Amino acid sequence: MINFRVILQITGILLIIEAIAIVLSVPVALYYHESSYFYLLISAIITGLTGLILRYTNQKQKHSTVTKREGYIIVSISWIIFSLFGALPFFLSGEIPHFTDAFFETISGFTTTGATILQDIEAMSKGMLFWRSMTQWLGGMGIIVLSLAVLPILGIGGMQLFFAEVPGPTPDKLHPRIKETAKRLWAIYLILTLAQIVLLIAGGLNVFDAVCHAFTTMATGGYSTKQASIAYYDSPFVQYVFIVFMFLAGTNFTLSYFAMHLRFDKILKNEEFRFYTLLILGFSLVIGLVLYFGGHLKGEPAFRHALFQVVSIMTTTGYATMDYLLWPPLVVLLIFMLMFVGGSAGSTGGGIKVLRVMLLLKNSILEFKRLIHPNAIVQVRLSNNTVQPEVITNILAFVSIYLIITVTGMITVSAMGYDLATSAGAVAATLGNIGPGLGMVGPVAVYAHFPDFGKWFLSFLMLIGRLELFTVLILFSKSFWKK
Amino acid sequence: MINFRVILQITGILLIIEAIAIVLSVPVALYYHESSYFYLLISAIITGLTGLILRYTNQKQKHSTVTKREGYIIVSISWIIFSLFGALPFFLSGEIPHFTDAFFETISGFTTTGATILQDIEAMSKGMLFWRSMTQWLGGMGIIVLSLAVLPILGIGGMQLFFAEVPGPTPDKLHPRIKETAKRLWAIYLILTLAQIVLLIAGGLNVFDAVCHAFTTMATGGYSTKQASIAYYDSPFVQYVFIVFMFLAGTNFTLSYFAMHLRFDKILKNEEFRFYTLLILGFSLVIGLVLYFGGHLKGEPAFRHALFQVVSIMTTTGYATMDYLLWPPLVVLLIFMLMFVGGSAGSTGGGIKVLRVMLLLKNSILEFKRLIHPNAIVQVRLSNNTVQPEVITNILAFVSIYLIITVTGMITVSAMGYDLATSAGAVAATLGNIGPGLGMVGPVAVYAHFPDFGKWFLSFLMLIGRLELFTVLILFSKSFWKK
Repeated sequence: MINFRVILQITGILLIIEAIAIVLSVPVALYYHESSYFYLLISAIITGLTGLILRYTNQKQKHSTVTKREGYIIVSISWIIFSLFGALPFFLSGEIPHFTDAFFETISGFTTTGATILQDIEAMSKGMLFWRSMTQWLGGMGIIVLSLAVLPILGIGGMQLFFAEVPGPTPDKLHPRIKETAKRLWAIYLILTLAQIVLLIAGGLNVFDAVCHAFTTMATGGYSTKQASIAYYDSPFVQYVFIVFMFLAGTNFTLSYFAMHLRFDKILKNEEFRFYTLLILGFSLVIGLVLYFGGHLKGEPAFRHALFQVVSIMTTTGYATMDYLLWPPLVVLLIFMLMFVGGSAGSTGGGIKVLRVMLLLKNSILEFKRLIHPNAIVQVRLSNNTVQPEVITNILAFVSIYLIITVTGMITVSAMGYDLATSAGAVAATLGNIGPGLGMVGPVAVYAHFPDFGKWFLSFLMLIGRLELFTVLILFSKSFWKK
Repeated sequence: MINFRVILQITGILLIIEAIAIVLSVPVALYYHESSYFYLLISAIITGLTGLILRYTNQKQKHSTVTKREGYIIVSISWIIFSLFGALPFFLSGEIPHFTDAFFETISGFTTTGATILQDIEAMSKGMLFWRSMTQWLGGMGIIVLSLAVLPILGIGGMQLFFAEVPGPTPDKLHPRIKETAKRLWAIYLILTLAQIVLLIAGGLNVFDAVCHAFTTMATGGYSTKQASIAYYDSPFVQYVFIVFMFLAGTNFTLSYFAMHLRFDKILKNEEFRFYTLLILGFSLVIGLVLYFGGHLKGEPAFRHALFQVVSIMTTTGYATMDYLLWPPLVVLLIFMLMFVGGSAGSTGGGIKVLRVMLLLKNSILEFKRLIHPNAIVQVRLSNNTVQPEVITNILAFVSIYLIITVTGMITVSAMGYDLATSAGAVAATLGNIGPGLGMVGPVAVYAHFPDFGKWFLSFLMLIGRLELFTVLILFSKSFWKK
């Protein structure tokens, strides 16, 4: 039996938290003497009241435990509910007058995707832009806890791998464990955000832009307060600050935890981190050389812009300092590939994740060895540990389903009349929680031209991409609801 | 120890067979009073002499058995040697003056790919066109034996699955088993080829065109004697004949064996066949409806041309009655997807193969069940039999490597300056042994514009695609050559 009262009760608590978050944008609106404060306040009240009603009409049940199945439902539903209520400020204020657009913009925020329908970002009020950045920061907080504390317990997509690595008490009880882990990770998240704010201000950004951008960097979200994204800031220093913090946001947050405890040995021993760094440096170098020798950019900027775009896409942030679609086809293809790799597991980045790609490659190589020596027992190893075959099967299934969804998504988008590049780009960029894609959704384009159905469909892709596919898709399975 | 004398000896025997095949084109040239007969004869003599020398300088060793490792080398090398010598008539006659082009055209024939560099097919002599079609027919014969008799024994790509299904004596000894199986399958291949020749002549083709086209249909090769491919033949009857025989060539040849023995129960019980038929009908229907309601084609032709293109691409034949690149993006995408699916296992078709795609889909669905009921034992089933987990792992590795090669191939092609569509199309069409792809290698385009390096690279893709990846790739592994 699925206990819907527990689900509603938790949803209520989450809405109360969201209301508080919306309220935090009110002072910003007031500071800039904007009328947007009123709509933010109204939205907070509606959200908070709904939360209180749900919370108290479903009495707290003593010693009630959340089952796995309820866990799946809560995780999926909470992202949708957050987006529905989070869209209220945009919609009620009329700054995004169409509800589908407001919802798209909000779920793109909470899933830390960063795909926007805004044709003129700088025309928005500061209050709304602050809330827009905040949706990503909250989404990033949510995903860290989800990927490092909740999903491993639910057994999603081979993520039980980190279970042992996560800083937190031993897994006796679900609730205190998640709570403790969350606290420690959020502390790091907060510290990194503050550090970036300070550095951005040092680089010449005003406080508002520094805070908003730090919010969306740590979440690997990519919403900017500027129409031109990071290209607005000409300063190499500022761009390098973004590169460093995107890089950090795309690493497993437990590594940042170790770094703060000066356990650098743990970081260097981490194979995923080594592979992640290698991929970023390798792709940046190749793209930098192509840009340099192709005469597109000269000297240091060739490599800086290559590095920026690579880190931005691979961590699934989606900021831009240049329009990569104007670069040679080889570069576009390499960037398109990176959209699938995504960030490290346990980071705020989306995509397939570096760990899965790495284990998949290792397993493919091992298949050869198995072929030559059929009787030898060769198993995939990770950081000197043996990876269980079930984990490999799970990862292979994850990647298969990821590709099946990509193809199905491309068919759906192209059926709306879009060309292949736009279809491939829009799906890769939403499913991978990146933002910019190819064709008509490139780094200088927006998603406004999609029909309503397209926007809802892409919103759905953002959601399943963010929640590691299975969490959402399992709800569509008949046997999930049986018994 | 790898016994190179055995390898050279077998290569010698194969070259003698090839010489005989080249000689068969001489009467055609003589009939049409062409000077090409001379170059065909010279090529046959060079090939035959080389074969005799290799055969007799490496004395037959009594009771010598071919090991697995030697098997891999022989299979890979024989396709290359066949192509090198098979290119001689084109090159020596000057009808394809550049050797790289002649080799590309020949390996494209032997691998039954059908990608051509010929800008004006009808300017070629009949003798050369006959040899060109013959390369595909021989390649088709080779691949049937390879996929149904040799590869299962070598344990490639989950193909051991059919082992039990293949009509032939029990696997006591390698040699007699392969010989018996080959004989039975070739009889079917010959009967089907003859049947198609008769029907094409009935449809109004002259004997030369009928024979050449039957050769390239049964091999799912796709070389035509006409510049316009099958679009040259306006007759719906002729087009339907092609559809039926492409369909048959894309099914497992053991099913044709059963059909001729009136064991239709075996055919209907075959899950791969059902899925293959379903995919073809489903994709044709969708594309037909798009063309019909999109106003591209009216009435029956909409569905006939949809069906023709779907069967042609999915069976990896590559004939065309229309340029699908002029159809809506959705259709192009669907056709591009089919390039990866390919024909049935044990057919002359290339690609990933229907069986692997089907098992992959089944396994992905099962992963959900495993997630919901972690302790339940759920295994992939095929035609009421349980599929061993190792077979699934093997297939997953195959598909992973197929995709890794596709991506690597795309990077290589785009590095030559080609756009994404052409890169994706050229790789999918050569690795999948199809012929026409997207962009600059569409159904009405040719591969002549590639630089020499590109032609050798794409030739390599045709080879590894044809030989189920592992057979060739294993030769690049260090541990293969050790000990």
